[in-house]
Amino acid sequence: MTVTDRLAEIADIGRDAERGGYSRHLLDATDASLRDWFRRSASALGLAVEEDGDANLWAWWGAPGDGAVATGSHLDSVPGGGAYDGPLGIAAAFEAVAQLQAEGFTPPRPVAVCAFAEEEGSRFGLPCLGTRLLTGAVEPAAALVRADAAGLTLEDAWRASGRDVAAVGPDPDRVARLAAFIELHVEQGRDLEDRGIPVSTASAIIPHGRWRLEITGEGNHAGTTTMDQRADPVVAAARAVLAVQEAARARPPARGTIGKVQVVPGGTNVIASRVVAWLDLRADHDEDVRALFDAVLAGARAGVEAEGCTLVVHEESFTSRVDFDAALTARVAAALRPEFGAVPSIPTGAGHDAGILSSVVPTAMLFVRNPTGVSHAPGEGARDADCEAGARALAATLRELAGAA
Amino acid sequence: MTVTDRLAEIADIGRDAERGGYSRHLLDATDASLRDWFRRSASALGLAVEEDGDANLWAWWGAPGDGAVATGSHLDSVPGGGAYDGPLGIAAAFEAVAQLQAEGFTPPRPVAVCAFAEEEGSRFGLPCLGTRLLTGAVEPAAALVRADAAGLTLEDAWRASGRDVAAVGPDPDRVARLAAFIELHVEQGRDLEDRGIPVSTASAIIPHGRWRLEITGEGNHAGTTTMDQRADPVVAAARAVLAVQEAARARPPARGTIGKVQVVPGGTNVIASRVVAWLDLRADHDEDVRALFDAVLAGARAGVEAEGCTLVVHEESFTSRVDFDAALTARVAAALRPEFGAVPSIPTGAGHDAGILSSVVPTAMLFVRNPTGVSHAPGEGARDADCEAGARALAATLRELAGAA
Repeated sequence: MTVTDRLAEIADIGRDAERGGYSRHLLDATDASLRDWFRRSASALGLAVEEDGDANLWAWWGAPGDGAVATGSHLDSVPGGGAYDGPLGIAAAFEAVAQLQAEGFTPPRPVAVCAFAEEEGSRFGLPCLGTRLLTGAVEPAAALVRADAAGLTLEDAWRASGRDVAAVGPDPDRVARLAAFIELHVEQGRDLEDRGIPVSTASAIIPHGRWRLEITGEGNHAGTTTMDQRADPVVAAARAVLAVQEAARARPPARGTIGKVQVVPGGTNVIASRVVAWLDLRADHDEDVRALFDAVLAGARAGVEAEGCTLVVHEESFTSRVDFDAALTARVAAALRPEFGAVPSIPTGAGHDAGILSSVVPTAMLFVRNPTGVSHAPGEGARDADCEAGARALAATLRELAGAA
Repeated sequence: MTVTDRLAEIADIGRDAERGGYSRHLLDATDASLRDWFRRSASALGLAVEEDGDANLWAWWGAPGDGAVATGSHLDSVPGGGAYDGPLGIAAAFEAVAQLQAEGFTPPRPVAVCAFAEEEGSRFGLPCLGTRLLTGAVEPAAALVRADAAGLTLEDAWRASGRDVAAVGPDPDRVARLAAFIELHVEQGRDLEDRGIPVSTASAIIPHGRWRLEITGEGNHAGTTTMDQRADPVVAAARAVLAVQEAARARPPARGTIGKVQVVPGGTNVIASRVVAWLDLRADHDEDVRALFDAVLAGARAGVEAEGCTLVVHEESFTSRVDFDAALTARVAAALRPEFGAVPSIPTGAGHDAGILSSVVPTAMLFVRNPTGVSHAPGEGARDADCEAGARALAATLRELAGAA
């Protein structure tokens, strides 16, 4: 098989007719189908699959044990996401194992292919949910009370899927067995395309924070309320959006985004009473994100108050900068050199399970070139040849890391 | 009974736990309950109820026939609307009939109490749907293809409710039987509160138009896409929102509102690819609304294009200014004079079924004081005593209009 063949097997699962691309979320109808595919792919390679208490899947090549080398990514997507973000890292991992098996390689160390739960946070709002739970980065109780857009809590969805709520939480024994974790991922920018290079390692994940802005005004009739009588939270939110853009533009390479907005009650002929907007900020270092947030907040608050509305801000998450393991990354780069030469090590603005795991396990990443640079949208891309190159790079990495006991 | 008693009978139907107030929409679960209440209220007064082909209810006092006097309003609400907008006009009509019956009055002309379908347009996007269909102001085919937020068309919802799609459309014989139509409605501003007057007549409905703005940008990853690489439709929409406010403020007493917004795909960590925003514009005269729209469009287009996005605008509806029948309004005012003295005749910025019917039937309106002035929100109000005053005013009106053959 090829990586492309493997991805073709899930190409029909979770297509989003409205947004384009894919909408695949934890514990929804697509989730079971994707997990079935994972189990079938593992089984075909003779790997034994187990699901941990946090709904992460582990396919073991060799008996689970100390000094294991794990690789993998996630199967969920953002709403209307691309085909590669997540699944490429899993399909490439299975393909890498298949290639190593075909060449007669038997790893002295156990190798695990992983699929982590809800990396995007698109359903329950907490990115890297599975690895945060696994490593203890989030308390089970704090995660289980989170609700999806329909108001269903993670706890209720968990029970409804037949899973055990009591099993949710950190699994230090499992984590302690890992000697290294490698995540292969499609690049989420055009750096490799611009350099003309198919694969690279990763140096760091720049930090990011998410905040929920609740802007309250005064609901009223759109036809009978004159302009001077209004406290319109949609206008206030518009000023906040522009404050985000202005503050981020003033601090390159910082990024500030509002990509999710709810207008309540949301009637055509109704001045809204409330707007909820989600703010995503990223910058090179933690203190840069904090400074950006302060600037955004000052601008947003001024704009909101000028409209006679009020602003309440909730921090939903703050993810500090992650520098990947330099020694491990150098070993990976050395393993790639025979085929790929000297690959660059590039930073990324996107969060990954690798970022969470790096706090407890030596971790590195591989990126595969994305010709459009588009990410989290249907236009995301990866050439077939680059997907196969990624699998060969991952095979070389596993041969190196799992090859010596 | 009292009007307050009658409204108490439906106080638990369609409460909106999330937005506050009521969400009652055509053919949803609340609709059947509200129709049941209408039938029971009519039956208790000996009125025979029929539903026309457009889902409008008619409760007849006396045999349906020529020269009829109709009164009524609507049972549906905006999302999170108040308790009075619509139902007050129906509860007051039943109470007025009860009072006339109690005093032994037998009307020489047939009297009808009406409940018109989807006045707010909150589910299928076309306000005054029932009266527009009844009078031929909209083609049945154009209405039936409209879809609700879940993508269900009016036609499918109509069939699912057991109604006959073939019966939808104008009913000129029914309309021709009407000699007059009177709609009693809670005021949607503070004019009567400021004047210290419980009821009034209406002079006119100022015109309004609704447009759908589709702003398309480039979806991408919020973390990896630098600010200078973006075409973010949320930022473009923010500029459009501010253009609406600026243009409307420059033309008092014009009103411009964006109260409904959809962000696609709507992920926290995703730069949106598309924003749809609904624009509501009102002004004194049709040409004022058109001029306001031109100004809004110029400002919005400049803002959208400055963000590298594109704007496509669809006109969803345009409702011309309605001047109510002056002679009929004078007769109503004269009927009110014994109890209420000289009541004012005030314009309104809100659309009503009375506005649609006025094109084919002599039509007048009665307003009941709203102490908060709030409308289309839970804070809408009407004092109990004013509701009863409204019913007495409507009884006096019916005694006058239906009293002479």
